[in-house]
Amino acid sequence: MAEWQRYLDENQARFQAELLEFLRIPSVSALPDRAGDVEHAAVWVADRMRAAGIEHVEIFPTAGHPVVCGDWRHASGKPTILIYGHFDTQPADPVELWDSPPFQPVVKEGRVYARGSTDDKGNMLIPILSVEALLKTGSALPVNVRFIFEGQEEIGSPQIPAFVAAHRDRLLCDVVVSADGSQWGEDQPALWVGCKGLCGLQIDVQGAAADLHSGTYGGAVQNPIHALAQILASMRDPRGRICVNGFYNDVIPLTDADRESIAAVPFDESAYKKDLDVDDLFGEAGYSPLERAWARPTLEVNGIWGGFQGDGVKTVLPSSAHAKITCRLVAEQIPDRVLDAVEAHVREHAPPGVRIVIQRFPASARPYRMPVDHPDNRIPHGVLTEMYGKEPYYIRTGGTVPVYRLFLDELGVYTVTFAFGLEDERLHAPNEFFRLSSFQRGQRAYCRLLEEWS
Amino acid sequence: MAEWQRYLDENQARFQAELLEFLRIPSVSALPDRAGDVEHAAVWVADRMRAAGIEHVEIFPTAGHPVVCGDWRHASGKPTILIYGHFDTQPADPVELWDSPPFQPVVKEGRVYARGSTDDKGNMLIPILSVEALLKTGSALPVNVRFIFEGQEEIGSPQIPAFVAAHRDRLLCDVVVSADGSQWGEDQPALWVGCKGLCGLQIDVQGAAADLHSGTYGGAVQNPIHALAQILASMRDPRGRICVNGFYNDVIPLTDADRESIAAVPFDESAYKKDLDVDDLFGEAGYSPLERAWARPTLEVNGIWGGFQGDGVKTVLPSSAHAKITCRLVAEQIPDRVLDAVEAHVREHAPPGVRIVIQRFPASARPYRMPVDHPDNRIPHGVLTEMYGKEPYYIRTGGTVPVYRLFLDELGVYTVTFAFGLEDERLHAPNEFFRLSSFQRGQRAYCRLLEEWS
Repeated sequence: MAEWQRYLDENQARFQAELLEFLRIPSVSALPDRAGDVEHAAVWVADRMRAAGIEHVEIFPTAGHPVVCGDWRHASGKPTILIYGHFDTQPADPVELWDSPPFQPVVKEGRVYARGSTDDKGNMLIPILSVEALLKTGSALPVNVRFIFEGQEEIGSPQIPAFVAAHRDRLLCDVVVSADGSQWGEDQPALWVGCKGLCGLQIDVQGAAADLHSGTYGGAVQNPIHALAQILASMRDPRGRICVNGFYNDVIPLTDADRESIAAVPFDESAYKKDLDVDDLFGEAGYSPLERAWARPTLEVNGIWGGFQGDGVKTVLPSSAHAKITCRLVAEQIPDRVLDAVEAHVREHAPPGVRIVIQRFPASARPYRMPVDHPDNRIPHGVLTEMYGKEPYYIRTGGTVPVYRLFLDELGVYTVTFAFGLEDERLHAPNEFFRLSSFQRGQRAYCRLLEEWS
Repeated sequence: MAEWQRYLDENQARFQAELLEFLRIPSVSALPDRAGDVEHAAVWVADRMRAAGIEHVEIFPTAGHPVVCGDWRHASGKPTILIYGHFDTQPADPVELWDSPPFQPVVKEGRVYARGSTDDKGNMLIPILSVEALLKTGSALPVNVRFIFEGQEEIGSPQIPAFVAAHRDRLLCDVVVSADGSQWGEDQPALWVGCKGLCGLQIDVQGAAADLHSGTYGGAVQNPIHALAQILASMRDPRGRICVNGFYNDVIPLTDADRESIAAVPFDESAYKKDLDVDDLFGEAGYSPLERAWARPTLEVNGIWGGFQGDGVKTVLPSSAHAKITCRLVAEQIPDRVLDAVEAHVREHAPPGVRIVIQRFPASARPYRMPVDHPDNRIPHGVLTEMYGKEPYYIRTGGTVPVYRLFLDELGVYTVTFAFGLEDERLHAPNEFFRLSSFQRGQRAYCRLLEEWS
C-alpha cells in the first residue's frame, strides 16, 4: 500500500470532520447579506491549503467575492496542473423542503446532507487533501500544482474574467483539472467534454400603479400576470422549440458523430422518469433527452411571481408581475446576442396596457467544448479506468462552469473535469448530499492522477 | 335643524374616535390566524349596537366567522328595513406599499387611512350611529329596522347562505338596505342596480418531485412555470375575449337599453388612465370600458408563484407553479358551471410532463341585478337627490356582494345599496382610506332615509 494511501485512511475521520466544518459556513454567493460568509469560506480554504503544505496561499479580493490561489512548484521539468474548484454555494431555499437545516450538515447512511456538499465543497476539498497526503508522506509532489478556488461560481463568476486576465502569471499551466463536476455512477466513471454557456434576464411587467380591486377594474385594464403568461407562452411552441427569433442562429448543428457519441451513453428513460416522479419527459422535438440536456440550447423560467400568494382568496388585480429566465447556450452561441433576441421578443410580444422593464443578469458565460480525442484526456482516462475497472464515458453537461471557456480563451488550455459527485445528489435542490465513499475515492484518484501526470 | 342633526354634530368627535377604534381590529377574514380578530370585531359591533339602543343584539357563531344581528321593531304598521354591512376586511399585503401601518389608522386632510376604512367598517358604522341619533333624540324610530352584519364578506360569505336559511324569521323584511357600496363622486350620488357574481380556483402545476438544476435537466423535462404560462395564456385571446369553452354560455347579452343606460354615466377615459398610471386600457373587444367592468364577465389571475423569487439568479428548474384565478360573473351565469368550464380548459390545455391539481375556492356567488324602475329605488332616489342636489346615476359594479342575490332568492326582496364610499378610496389596495365628510354625510342620509321610508 502506498504511503499516501495509509495517510488518507488514518486521517479520514479528521477529513470528514473538516468537511462538516466547511459545510457549516453558509457561503451563498447569490445573497448579498451572505457576502461575509463567502469571505469566511475563503479564509477557511486558505487556512486549509496552508495546513496541507501548499505554498504562496493568498486571498485576492475582487469587486465581488474573493478568489483563493496557492501553488507548489518544486517539480522541476514536470508539467504544471492548475486545479480549480469553488467554495460558494447555491441558495438553500425552499428551506422548508429540507429534512435537516441546509447549513447544519447531517451524516446518514454514508452520505453527508448539506447545501454545497456535492457542489462543490466536498469535491473541491478533495485535491487539497490528496496534496497533503503526498506532501506529508513524501517531501514532494510528482508534478507542479497551482490552485484557483473561487467564491462566485453559482452566480456565474462575474469578476473571474477580469481576475484571470490580471493574474495570468499565477495561473499559467499545461492543463486545468477541475474539481467541480461528477462521475456517471458509483460504478461508472466519466470525463466531461462540454458544458453549456449561460445568460439570463428578469422581466418586470408593470400595470396600474397600485393593486386594484378585481371587480371594479377587472376586464377594463390589463392584468400584468396575464400579460406575462402570454409573453412566456409565446417563447415556446407546443413541441418544445424556442420561438424567439434568432435564438438558434449561432448553434452548431449536431453531427452524426456527436449523436453517436451521445447515444453511446446509456440512458434509461423509465428510470429517469421514475427518479424525477414525472409521467412524461418534454423537450425540443427531434432530439433525444440527452441531446436536449447536453447539446441543445434551452430557455427556462427559473421563477415567477405577482399578486396574492397567501392562503385563501384575495380578489386583486395586481399591479405587477415578474419572471426570471436563464438560457443555457451551446457552441457557438454568444450570451449578449441571445439576450438581445430574448429582449426583442419580450418587447414585441408584450400586450397593450403594461410597461416592460428588462434587467439583464450581470454574469454570463460562453459554452465550452473539448475534443474527445484531445491528449489531455489520456491520463485521467487511464486513472479512472484503473480505479473503476471500466472505461469512462465521454459526456457533456447542461450545467455551466464559466471558467472552462475562460481558461481556454485566456490561458490556451483545456480543462479536464476530475470530480466525484453524482447527478442524483440533488445539487441546487433541497436535501443536497455527497457520498462519503466518493469523498474517499476522490482522494485516492487525485493522488494517482498527480503521480501519473509526472 | 332636526334634533338628530344636532346630536350627530355634537357627537361627531366621539364617532370618529370610535371609528378609529374599530379600524384598529385587524379583522382579516382570509387569514386563519386572524379569526380571533374577526371575532373581536363582532363583539365590538354588538357592543356598539347595544349602546345605540338596538335591541336583541346577538352574535351567532357559524362554521366560519360570526354574524351579528339585532333589531328595533316598535313602529307598528310601518315597513321593516333590513340593514346589511360587514366588519371583516381584505388582507393588508403588500404591507410594504402602505405609507402607514394598515391597522393603525391615521387621519390626514379629512381622510382616515386604514384597511377596512371604506370597505366596509366606515360605511357599516354609519347606520348604527344614525339609529342612535334618532333613538337618543326621540324615543322611537320611524320604521322597523333589523340588522345583519357579517364577518366573511371578503372571502365570499361561505357560511351566509346556510345562516340566512336557518334564520329567515330574524331577517324577514320589506327591503334590504346595504351599507356596503359607494356613491359616484363627492358631488354625484348613485344607486346600484347590479353586482357581479364570483367564483374561483387555484391551479397547482406539479412537475418533478424536487427543484432541479436547470442545466442538468433543462430541456429534458417540462418546466411547470412554462406549462402554467401556457395554460393561462390559452384562456384569453389577443382581443381580450376569454377562450374558455362555454364561459359565455349563460351570459344575457346587453340590450340596447342596457348599453344606453351605461353610456349615460360619464366616463373620462384619459382621467381614468392617468389615475391608474397606464398608457392603454385593455379588455374584451366590442365593449366600452364601463360595459366590460360592469356588465361583462371577467377572468382574472389574482396571483402567481413558482421557483426562485429572491434577489439575483438561481438557475433552478422548479418543481411546481401555482396560480389563483377568480371570475366575476354576470346574470345568469352559474358559478359551478363556470368553474366546470375553466377546469376542463385547464386540463385540456395542460402540456405533457406535469400533473394538475385544481382547488376550487369554497365561496362563490351568483350575480345580482335589480330593475332600474323598481319601486324600492324611489325613496333612496329622493333622499339622495335632496342631499346632493342632483339625481343619482343608476350604476352597476364589477364587485361582488354575495348576499344581494341570496336575499333575493331566500327572502324575496331586493337590496338597495345606500353607502358613501368612493371608488378612488383604494379598496382592496394599499393606503385604503375613507373621507370623513362621507362618514358625516352618510349619517344624515340614513336618518333621512328612515324618516322618508315611514
